[in-house]
Amino acid sequence: MPVKLTTPIASSLLPVNGITLGFAEANVRKANRKDVLVMQLAEGTHVSGVFTQNKFCAAPVIVCKQHLAATNDIRALLVNTGNANAGTGELGLQHAKQSCDALAGLLNLSSDQILPFSTGVILEPLPVDRIVNALPAAIVNLKADNWLNAAESIMTTDILPKATSRQLTIDGKTITITGISKGSGMIHPNMATMLGYVATDAAISKPALDVIIDYAVNKSFNCITVDGDTSTNDSFIIMATNLAGNAEITEDSADFVALRDVMTEVGVELAQAIVRDGEGATKFMTIQVEHGKDAAECRKVAYTIAHSPLVKTAFFASDPNLGRILAAIGYADVDDLDVNVLSLYLGGVLVAEHGCISPSYQEEEGVAVMQEEDILVRVDLNRGQADATIWTCDFSYDYVKINADYRS
Amino acid sequence: MPVKLTTPIASSLLPVNGITLGFAEANVRKANRKDVLVMQLAEGTHVSGVFTQNKFCAAPVIVCKQHLAATNDIRALLVNTGNANAGTGELGLQHAKQSCDALAGLLNLSSDQILPFSTGVILEPLPVDRIVNALPAAIVNLKADNWLNAAESIMTTDILPKATSRQLTIDGKTITITGISKGSGMIHPNMATMLGYVATDAAISKPALDVIIDYAVNKSFNCITVDGDTSTNDSFIIMATNLAGNAEITEDSADFVALRDVMTEVGVELAQAIVRDGEGATKFMTIQVEHGKDAAECRKVAYTIAHSPLVKTAFFASDPNLGRILAAIGYADVDDLDVNVLSLYLGGVLVAEHGCISPSYQEEEGVAVMQEEDILVRVDLNRGQADATIWTCDFSYDYVKINADYRS
Repeated sequence: MPVKLTTPIASSLLPVNGITLGFAEANVRKANRKDVLVMQLAEGTHVSGVFTQNKFCAAPVIVCKQHLAATNDIRALLVNTGNANAGTGELGLQHAKQSCDALAGLLNLSSDQILPFSTGVILEPLPVDRIVNALPAAIVNLKADNWLNAAESIMTTDILPKATSRQLTIDGKTITITGISKGSGMIHPNMATMLGYVATDAAISKPALDVIIDYAVNKSFNCITVDGDTSTNDSFIIMATNLAGNAEITEDSADFVALRDVMTEVGVELAQAIVRDGEGATKFMTIQVEHGKDAAECRKVAYTIAHSPLVKTAFFASDPNLGRILAAIGYADVDDLDVNVLSLYLGGVLVAEHGCISPSYQEEEGVAVMQEEDILVRVDLNRGQADATIWTCDFSYDYVKINADYRS
Repeated sequence: MPVKLTTPIASSLLPVNGITLGFAEANVRKANRKDVLVMQLAEGTHVSGVFTQNKFCAAPVIVCKQHLAATNDIRALLVNTGNANAGTGELGLQHAKQSCDALAGLLNLSSDQILPFSTGVILEPLPVDRIVNALPAAIVNLKADNWLNAAESIMTTDILPKATSRQLTIDGKTITITGISKGSGMIHPNMATMLGYVATDAAISKPALDVIIDYAVNKSFNCITVDGDTSTNDSFIIMATNLAGNAEITEDSADFVALRDVMTEVGVELAQAIVRDGEGATKFMTIQVEHGKDAAECRKVAYTIAHSPLVKTAFFASDPNLGRILAAIGYADVDDLDVNVLSLYLGGVLVAEHGCISPSYQEEEGVAVMQEEDILVRVDLNRGQADATIWTCDFSYDYVKINADYRS
């Protein structure tokens, strides 16, 4: 079951002026589930996106990039689950464009004003006809307060929908930010598709929005994945409808940092929710590596710990088998790392230093920390000023069950 | 259960002239199991070793390297299971040396003529007294035909002992090669300790033996692990007693290649046995990547496939979810890889080409291949002349069970 994650309360998800959302049951892969989402954006909305770096990137990712390059007037997003339209070659591109054409026709837009997204099984042709046939139903129920339905519509193996809202005041105007995400493959988070959509009604220039998306993704979704090691379909989109009435924010505006930070906070919550709903997860682990020479080496150490199946299974067992963490640090491929100067903490407990177990360490203390659902693993490399934090989850029977059964 | 692996027949394991083996039950971690092995080597035996590159390398690894540097007259090996003596700092080094001192005293050798090895839990002090106390019992039963007992004595989570023998004729003399190995952690094979010992009675110069060990380990144990990404204790040792009566083989000898290749064959069988006995393994997978620009990129692609938990769980489910393999190829971090020119085969079946599923592919054919216990995954990168082959296993419920329960 998800770790300290609950279904968002629908009324807590605040409408964003200029955004409406509609869903449908298209039967893409399974019957009786919402599997198509349409998001309609008001004229003047600025849209920025970051996408997977996987060389086998999916057809919709290619089309998204083409459309973002072709126009600054994106007016709708179309998401389907059940089929990722990945590894589908030329036909996949045709299918993605065909779905954009169909939605453009219904909304009186041009096809390149639509961004398409798909998630689900790969290497199978997209049942584009079923998606197209479901679009009228999705459009009929386009509403501003459909965020929870939207979050539910993009789920695949997710147990819970993921969504959150924040508000702040800029220029005396209330700015609303609401976002949704999906994704739950966690052992290598990079291999399961993550989708994230964050919308705000703030007025903000396109260049400033581009800066914010890079900043936010590096502090959130990129802390549960590895640059360049992403799935075929990963996408993160930020939309700003410019309808809140504030003076347009640029990178030089006094309020730029405040808006950036709240949008980042939304990104972090949505990214952490993916980990908390990790496939089979029973623990949420924060891996914090500090006092490294640079952020890159801190991230290497953190990811090596986070990716170790031996570490993950020990956390599942609530077993303070801390040697497995030390072994992972040891093969993290950091040059000249001196294991005799680093310290390892589990929660607030110093467990290892000087290359061995700390004399002060009591097994009961380690056991107590391991019983928690939220666990902090902290590594002090003691050789510099850089740090990095990433989030991951443990590795359970259910991970295997979910992934062995996925296509059945 | 192990995949197409059975307990070796004791009589098939041929004594190597100049090597005797003795074991004992020292109660290192569990009662009533062989957990200490002594191998005594005749005077004049040449010994070469390769060791883990983990920065947290265990105390016995450090001591092995010191002793190999200090003397060309190694005369005994001492192996214990149950405790890896890793992450144990200065005390661990003292313990490793203490065990060598004790064995040296009993065999009338100097301490640096002993190579110590440990495998088991890490970060806990080695119960060196129990090991020392068991040495007389191990020495009493030193025998040339104890290879199966020896293989059993070094097991940790291994289900079956791993051992094999070969013979060849050089100079009209029969040369015998016998080896044993242990190890069974498989999701990242690099994180579980692998030990391998191969002995021959061939007369061979020390420089030639050093060349053979590098060649053999790169074709065998390094094909189930990643250079530099090894456990705290991994070790591979080759011993040549020089008692077979052949003229000493050097790198220039006509018979050098023949001996090298048979010793490599023994290494391959022992390394593959570790995969076949992978924790929870139900399938043995050969990942063959061919026509790459260089071996390094072929290995990157092969390891990325082999380490993907999504691929491994699909194999466990006998599900030809080949898209997961393509996704892994896509994030293998190979520059400028063009996924539209590569081909993917499952066994003899072409499943994907031109960036998508092959028109000739029938799902039933994929399913049939996936039902096998030994499965070949072949990727043709279609861009060069290099290739690489590695071996791995699938990922099952039992992997989680074994690793979640390991310390209990």
